[in-house]
Amino acid sequence: MERRNAFYAQSGGVTAVINASACGVIQAARAHPDAITNVIAGRNGIIGALHEDLIDTSLESDHAIAGLRYTPSGAFGSCRYKLKSIEENQAEYTRLLEVFAAHDIGYFFYNGGGDSQDTTNKIAQLSLQRGYPLKCIGIPKTVDNDLPVTDNCPGFGSVAKYVAVSIREAGFDVASMAKTSTKVFVMEVMGRHAGWIAAAGGLAQEHDGDAPHVILFPEIEFDESRFIARVEQCVAQHGYCAIVVSEGLRTPDGKFVADSGIRDAFGHAQLGGVAPVIATLIKQRLGLKFHWAVADYLQRAARHIASKTDVEQAYALGHAAVEMALAGKNAVMPTIERLADDPYEWRIGEVALEKVANVEKMMPRDFITADGFGITDSCRRYLKPLIAGEDYPPYRDGLPDYIKLKNLPIKKRLSTDFTLS
Amino acid sequence: MERRNAFYAQSGGVTAVINASACGVIQAARAHPDAITNVIAGRNGIIGALHEDLIDTSLESDHAIAGLRYTPSGAFGSCRYKLKSIEENQAEYTRLLEVFAAHDIGYFFYNGGGDSQDTTNKIAQLSLQRGYPLKCIGIPKTVDNDLPVTDNCPGFGSVAKYVAVSIREAGFDVASMAKTSTKVFVMEVMGRHAGWIAAAGGLAQEHDGDAPHVILFPEIEFDESRFIARVEQCVAQHGYCAIVVSEGLRTPDGKFVADSGIRDAFGHAQLGGVAPVIATLIKQRLGLKFHWAVADYLQRAARHIASKTDVEQAYALGHAAVEMALAGKNAVMPTIERLADDPYEWRIGEVALEKVANVEKMMPRDFITADGFGITDSCRRYLKPLIAGEDYPPYRDGLPDYIKLKNLPIKKRLSTDFTLS
Repeated sequence: MERRNAFYAQSGGVTAVINASACGVIQAARAHPDAITNVIAGRNGIIGALHEDLIDTSLESDHAIAGLRYTPSGAFGSCRYKLKSIEENQAEYTRLLEVFAAHDIGYFFYNGGGDSQDTTNKIAQLSLQRGYPLKCIGIPKTVDNDLPVTDNCPGFGSVAKYVAVSIREAGFDVASMAKTSTKVFVMEVMGRHAGWIAAAGGLAQEHDGDAPHVILFPEIEFDESRFIARVEQCVAQHGYCAIVVSEGLRTPDGKFVADSGIRDAFGHAQLGGVAPVIATLIKQRLGLKFHWAVADYLQRAARHIASKTDVEQAYALGHAAVEMALAGKNAVMPTIERLADDPYEWRIGEVALEKVANVEKMMPRDFITADGFGITDSCRRYLKPLIAGEDYPPYRDGLPDYIKLKNLPIKKRLSTDFTLS
Repeated sequence: MERRNAFYAQSGGVTAVINASACGVIQAARAHPDAITNVIAGRNGIIGALHEDLIDTSLESDHAIAGLRYTPSGAFGSCRYKLKSIEENQAEYTRLLEVFAAHDIGYFFYNGGGDSQDTTNKIAQLSLQRGYPLKCIGIPKTVDNDLPVTDNCPGFGSVAKYVAVSIREAGFDVASMAKTSTKVFVMEVMGRHAGWIAAAGGLAQEHDGDAPHVILFPEIEFDESRFIARVEQCVAQHGYCAIVVSEGLRTPDGKFVADSGIRDAFGHAQLGGVAPVIATLIKQRLGLKFHWAVADYLQRAARHIASKTDVEQAYALGHAAVEMALAGKNAVMPTIERLADDPYEWRIGEVALEKVANVEKMMPRDFITADGFGITDSCRRYLKPLIAGEDYPPYRDGLPDYIKLKNLPIKKRLSTDFTLS
């Protein structure tokens, strides 16, 4: 087999476990020195390839690469940059193939969400057309859990665990305080379009009366009166009410609640956050003392409380991507196939990228209770194994001892630069 | 020795480790059945004593009591209720002694902050005056770390660890995204008057360039221009800027920044949160993309990432309180005495309650850097041992398996009820 270099890049919002996939890719590549000379990483994602700003991972020790497994975020840098269609901007694709050719890249691994899988597929098609030998494999990643075909997406399980743990803990706190102080707690979580992350909060509720008592999903129109009635009833029954709200919650006219027309003294849109809007609404309608939290990046960066299942799957998918490429596969993405819920069994599957690109997997309606405020047993069955197990990072001086790579550049071989459009 | 009952109550905002103190109290009491018949807990704190709403902890298994060590929040319920002075409301104190007499309570353990220590001291003085035999011991607790004499307060170390871990993780996240997306991240933490919690975020910064790059303390007047210049310089130098801001940040005229006059369309004060104010300010002045988080209760309830040092100290102080009472001491509080920074050594000390009541320990100015945006080496030396060590709770199905007590009531012995004033 001819030895070639591999290119790996991280794309879009990072997660607690995307580096575990990077670890899987690089460790698998290092196990095949006969086939893969080196893994070259794009600095800040695909932009690094366009600018020929490439990182030499061969200069990172085995110890450092192993450390990627327990280090959150994107170790090589990520980017929010979507390649246009080939018709719209052929120059970008041509440039990528030029850079790949200059660095003898025979394998392209792109670690991201739906857009990235689409890009990977386009590059695969173009390289075939142009006769440039390149195996293109997508590696799934998204906290939103919205990729199709794969049973779940790496990154999601750890956010799900963080959200479920956090609302359980905050629920205990509010329960202690409710007699004379805070009676309502609102926690805002990610999810602009799909309620998977909010749903995960529901796992904290094992018995009637446990937090969270109400979940507000982007899939369910926000009905203020029904919601207020529910909170009031909950406080009457349990003494307090703990709420998980998705950032993507919308009013019946389709507007984000977080952007519900509230303006500051200068007329600027309000400062953001659906949690304070919901909490203030409860205060105005029911007069109850509230607290609210917005987890934001804390939830997707929380490697300290990552799901063991998630870490294992992220690693396995990165590893499998390399194995697939070496087996001659092209334009595919390794997937997670669920074999059984309990005890949970899964294996690596495979899907053609054309079936993944531009398809969003929404929550099935039957994962949300009829009243729209909770999750059903089938949802619980689906989510439960995804948060199972702990995979603590090493600590030094009381803090997680995450890895920072050297990220040394590879010497440029092209004389031209490229301007992003 | 005559056998008497002990009374234990939790007061004020709860923490990740106040139940570890409760565990210390009850386990120490159970080890002295010759002296302590039973630990009777106040339901929802001191209010439970006033209403004779008492919990029989003898009905909780040893397993359940052991579980308090790893369960956050106040297992018996807490309250925000400050007893008035004896002159203002003698009836409250008289009622307490009536309830104590009716239930043969000879030991009073009150687990809380400065106000609670003051209350404990007053009850001690009154019981002496009235000739009612009662040993009164305060047990320190406050995430704010603002009690005097004791080197630190149980509850603080775990919040400190949460904040340091979280800003390290979010810093990694933003660093990955900064090239094309988020360049500024603002995390709001607790601390209305003292910046101890915000300072703890500084532990995440080990090397120049690490997050957090800026800390905003309540002790340092917010100077908008200097702050904006600092953020701009940080982004120019490192590509991004991670900020920890204390909820108690104030403008030079003494107002909370979180309440800086921004009003919604109806003229209501803005929805709260200093993080969105700071983030929006940066957007307006520098045009940088931002994200923000408000940790709120998540930080003080985060038993999943508690400091081992904190858990051990909280337990030891509860245990020591019982030993002190049995040794005949009265109107004292066990303290933490630091013997050495590195390697950290500490022991239990003791202070008269009159020296604790109504004194707030502020951050020394020399713990904050001259520019007001960071912590000094002496601050670091002080804080570092307090977040040391992990003390993970047990997990079941991917979630912390926290204990819920039965909290069964003790039959009332008084025919009168009491109305809170």
